[in-house]
Amino acid sequence: MINTFWQISAILVSVLALGVAFWLYTWIKAQPSSNETVQHVGDLIRKGANTFLRREYVLLARFAGVIAILILIFLPSPIWSGNWTKNLTMAFAYICGTALSALAGKIGIQVATIANVKSAEAAKKDIKLSFMAGFRGGAVMGMAVVGFCLLGVTVLLSFTKDSSAILGFSFGASSLALFAKAGGGIFTKTADISADLVGKVELGIPEDDPRNPAVIADNVGDNVGDVAGMGADLFDSNVASMAAALIVGMALAKDNANIVLAYAGIGLLASIIGVFCARMGSSKDPTTALNKNTYITTGVYLLLTALATFMFGFEWRIWGATMVGLLVGLIIGIATDYFTNDKKKPVQLTAEASKSGPALTILSGFAYGFFSVLPALIGIAISSLAAYKICEPLGGNYPLFGISMAAVGMLSIVAMIISNDAYGPIVDNARGLVEMGNLGEEALNITDELDSAGNTVKAMTKGFAIGAAGLTVIALLGTFMNEVNVAAAIAGKEIISGFDIMNPVVFFGLMIGIPIPAVFSAMLILGVDRNAQRMVKEIRRQFKEIPGLREGKAGVVPDYSKCIDIATTGALRELIPAGLMAIITTILVGFIGGVQAIGGFLTGNIVSGLLLALFMSNAGGLWDNGKKFVEAGHCGGKGSDAHKAAVVGDTVGDPFKDTAGPSINTQITVVSLVSSLLAVAFLSYSLF
Amino acid sequence: MINTFWQISAILVSVLALGVAFWLYTWIKAQPSSNETVQHVGDLIRKGANTFLRREYVLLARFAGVIAILILIFLPSPIWSGNWTKNLTMAFAYICGTALSALAGKIGIQVATIANVKSAEAAKKDIKLSFMAGFRGGAVMGMAVVGFCLLGVTVLLSFTKDSSAILGFSFGASSLALFAKAGGGIFTKTADISADLVGKVELGIPEDDPRNPAVIADNVGDNVGDVAGMGADLFDSNVASMAAALIVGMALAKDNANIVLAYAGIGLLASIIGVFCARMGSSKDPTTALNKNTYITTGVYLLLTALATFMFGFEWRIWGATMVGLLVGLIIGIATDYFTNDKKKPVQLTAEASKSGPALTILSGFAYGFFSVLPALIGIAISSLAAYKICEPLGGNYPLFGISMAAVGMLSIVAMIISNDAYGPIVDNARGLVEMGNLGEEALNITDELDSAGNTVKAMTKGFAIGAAGLTVIALLGTFMNEVNVAAAIAGKEIISGFDIMNPVVFFGLMIGIPIPAVFSAMLILGVDRNAQRMVKEIRRQFKEIPGLREGKAGVVPDYSKCIDIATTGALRELIPAGLMAIITTILVGFIGGVQAIGGFLTGNIVSGLLLALFMSNAGGLWDNGKKFVEAGHCGGKGSDAHKAAVVGDTVGDPFKDTAGPSINTQITVVSLVSSLLAVAFLSYSLF
Repeated sequence: MINTFWQISAILVSVLALGVAFWLYTWIKAQPSSNETVQHVGDLIRKGANTFLRREYVLLARFAGVIAILILIFLPSPIWSGNWTKNLTMAFAYICGTALSALAGKIGIQVATIANVKSAEAAKKDIKLSFMAGFRGGAVMGMAVVGFCLLGVTVLLSFTKDSSAILGFSFGASSLALFAKAGGGIFTKTADISADLVGKVELGIPEDDPRNPAVIADNVGDNVGDVAGMGADLFDSNVASMAAALIVGMALAKDNANIVLAYAGIGLLASIIGVFCARMGSSKDPTTALNKNTYITTGVYLLLTALATFMFGFEWRIWGATMVGLLVGLIIGIATDYFTNDKKKPVQLTAEASKSGPALTILSGFAYGFFSVLPALIGIAISSLAAYKICEPLGGNYPLFGISMAAVGMLSIVAMIISNDAYGPIVDNARGLVEMGNLGEEALNITDELDSAGNTVKAMTKGFAIGAAGLTVIALLGTFMNEVNVAAAIAGKEIISGFDIMNPVVFFGLMIGIPIPAVFSAMLILGVDRNAQRMVKEIRRQFKEIPGLREGKAGVVPDYSKCIDIATTGALRELIPAGLMAIITTILVGFIGGVQAIGGFLTGNIVSGLLLALFMSNAGGLWDNGKKFVEAGHCGGKGSDAHKAAVVGDTVGDPFKDTAGPSINTQITVVSLVSSLLAVAFLSYSLF
Repeated sequence: MINTFWQISAILVSVLALGVAFWLYTWIKAQPSSNETVQHVGDLIRKGANTFLRREYVLLARFAGVIAILILIFLPSPIWSGNWTKNLTMAFAYICGTALSALAGKIGIQVATIANVKSAEAAKKDIKLSFMAGFRGGAVMGMAVVGFCLLGVTVLLSFTKDSSAILGFSFGASSLALFAKAGGGIFTKTADISADLVGKVELGIPEDDPRNPAVIADNVGDNVGDVAGMGADLFDSNVASMAAALIVGMALAKDNANIVLAYAGIGLLASIIGVFCARMGSSKDPTTALNKNTYITTGVYLLLTALATFMFGFEWRIWGATMVGLLVGLIIGIATDYFTNDKKKPVQLTAEASKSGPALTILSGFAYGFFSVLPALIGIAISSLAAYKICEPLGGNYPLFGISMAAVGMLSIVAMIISNDAYGPIVDNARGLVEMGNLGEEALNITDELDSAGNTVKAMTKGFAIGAAGLTVIALLGTFMNEVNVAAAIAGKEIISGFDIMNPVVFFGLMIGIPIPAVFSAMLILGVDRNAQRMVKEIRRQFKEIPGLREGKAGVVPDYSKCIDIATTGALRELIPAGLMAIITTILVGFIGGVQAIGGFLTGNIVSGLLLALFMSNAGGLWDNGKKFVEAGHCGGKGSDAHKAAVVGDTVGDPFKDTAGPSINTQITVVSLVSSLLAVAFLSYSLF
């Protein structure tokens, strides 16, 4: 039985998190802001972000509407086959998934675009206060994402008592993530690249110069890509890990839901405690402060889950598997940091290589990016094997449940991860606002320091997120098998025990699965490219046609909204074919080769997806920090040939790390969920 | 029973091929060469190539000696367990594999470094004769490689009657290929990059300028990388495909060896016919001539195998599977051509993107490189499934035999593929010689045209080679399972029927297998980088310390051999760690997770290896031709900003397409063979 205590506790913790988010919001709102320029530009950014969100959500609503109707008619089984309430539940769960994730994104953006102004203003006086505004702004996103996520899962589970409904919820979250992450990623890089190409390269005006029509779009991009997009991505991973654990666990025994809800709830509670402990201590080092939050949360989580396990008689082996996930997540994060931190060799050697021109910058970053996939994949390999072995004595499918719980463990402190991560774009925005509002040299130094801390911490949280996604998709493979077997039992077909690589149908699927993440990435990268070209044209047009703009005549402002419009329309237009390609291929493979081919397909997808996601994220981060390292005065410093080469590396890395790399996670999850949802259909109708 | 008729026929065809090689050699030798400069430079190139080969072979002999002793002691089972003759046979077969492949490489280089001089000389008068010198020079390599390969396999099989001995032979060929392909790849790109960096970029002297101390090393590199390296690579793939087919086939019935030998022999015969048909017709288009050779060979092969199947009562289904392989190989070749041909959109759009700077060149090439993996992988997926399904009615392991035969089919016309491929570096060299010997404008135009045809055809042959390697490694996975089961039967252990992805040990292996090709590539790329830095220093030193060199004073020559020396030493030094990393990881995974983990490991390796090999080869080819497209006067032409950007793309692509990409094939084969050879050990001693 699912214990009511844990359901109520989980709901209470979620509500508490939402309450904390509201309290943080009022705190931020209450911070002073007096500078008019800053406020005005802040308003423009907020409005721009809202424009994008509105357009995105309208498109999403149409898309989700169609999918919801399809679910209503066909899933989990065709509506004419009887059980229509199940279809209704799943369609409803799907809509909840998209809506709650969208709501979290909306709240996060709303607060982030206030917090940036407050952080900028506070930087005039005090680094500590400026830090707090940035961090607490990010924490609203963390609280909202995980609060809505846990609330949705628990409420749905309580009402339906059916873990499959969670699949619908998870698919909803994935749909939104696809739009938010890939769409936001295209938006932000469109604006970034074209602002630089015309502004810095052609006209030689500085970054964040208010004359540049794309400058507001660039700032908006930070918010829609790095705040809303990243939040949706982790909402998606978090729900998927819970869905996998619930489906695999509840198939073994209904009361396994208790431990999932308990550990997830404790994770959120630990993050709330971590958020309230966060402040810059006497050390005055923002990086230390951010890392300290993570360690506190981890420690609290470790203690509280042990306590709960002891008090409520949970299985210690499951606890062990969960902790393995958490610890390996930390290790992956630290290892990722090595490859992207400018105090370490890879970044410094890449910067050094830049002295011999851009080709060697690219080759060097490429090589270290390739190296960087090693620790994460070894981490995933060891954690899945360890979780399995720890839970093996429990028998049955418990080892697989152990792996799912390792994924839940890795994602347990995700609210804190999001808080640290969303801090980055907020202080980045604040830095821009300080510059545009002329708040003085000291404020600029302060926001520079805060910004740099954001970049350092980001690498670690990103490693965490990808590692967790890796474990989650394995759990989703188990979920798929589970769904197939439930259907097979009903249809009187043979139960499958796995996917044998030597089975030619599995192998067929494997081969087709490999190129999908590559093609998906290519479509997004070319999407950014095409979109940037459209925007470059518009920027050039404005500089040509608006009199006095180029000279910076007082009172002459560019048409910011036109650029935001182009980035928005283009991003959404470019994103659809990539998403459809992945979904349609899945459906084709399923109807050609059946469930075995899908097993291979998902494996190929996971393998090449993990490889490319890790490579692109890390190489991108490395090039970015390589450029910053040169700009800090090394290898010739700003303006040198090495700097020019490092800028090329950074530009190549931009869509890698902010568009394609992180979107691959979502692509894999979407494909996995589509497979699970259509398991019955693939089982019943296939060519081979 | 293995039929003596087919053994004798195969041996006769091999000897015929070697005879043809000798005849072609005398033909080439008999062509006139009068220009002294050309002859002198040609001598330098030949000597340089021989220096590299000698050093490489000495190192290889040591390495192979150690491995041979290890095989003698431990494989197929420890020598103290009784059957020492088997160990002796395998060690002997191993040495034969390295020696015959090395011999083929030596012959190929010897002739290629004569043919380049003759082709250059002939270009003064006649494009047809110049073409013939280039093509026939390449054909010697083709005949020698496949002749020795078939001869070795047939003789070994006839004497031992044991297909496992072929594994030893195949591993020998792989060891040589690792040295020749990866070592040659590092050599050629070291010379290429550093010659360009100091010569073209720093001093502004033209390419192939005799004052540049690295210019001879650069020409040597074409021979050791693209002639000897490529030959060793295809020797390796060809033997591996035959070994897999023989092992899987003979485990079913001894007389399956007949069909393997028959089809392989016919393939070589068809190639001989193709070589003799080769000439530039009235069309005067070298590309057409080269492609025509391929089509003629394919047609002859199709007809003759059908005839043999009919006359000797071979199974038609096996014939069908073989033809599927051949046809899919052609299709992959054509699809690959699309992504690297400068008459097609991807290259042209990448050149277009270069107008906005090097970052967009890189991003665009990256995206199309990602797209380009799709057709090849779909081709492999379909051909393996089709071969399997065609042979399914034969029962037992015949479907797997069918897949092995599809790989044999893809590689059947490999002698022609090598001839076409080795033609490229020969006429490339000829072009350099024409320039250095001042043979006139018309000769330059002729060799330019011949060179460009080489590039176009190369893409197709490369697609072929990678596709074949893909199918071969699947067959090798089957071989591994076969070896495990032979050992399991003897040891009284359970027979395995496959590798289940849901088995955590398989999954563990899968995750560890993914990063290996990436790390291997990274090590080679950084190896090129480090080596190039050493060489750049030496070139700068010579220009500084040799009086009159920079000014081009008559009689002053740089110390070419010093540069060749650096490239040689560095290449061999950088290659060893990469090779050992792959082999040691395999051994570790095997002893940790046993045969199931190795099954996963090989799968992960194949998946990420195919992805990266296809991507790097195609992206590299695309950037290369993008640069040539710009140089042909498009997008601003030579000297424009677009050209500078395109050069950056080309430099990044160089180690992709000539070092890392093609070496991955060999890395996968080596790892697969090590696994098969150690199957018994992994079965007996492992942690899990």
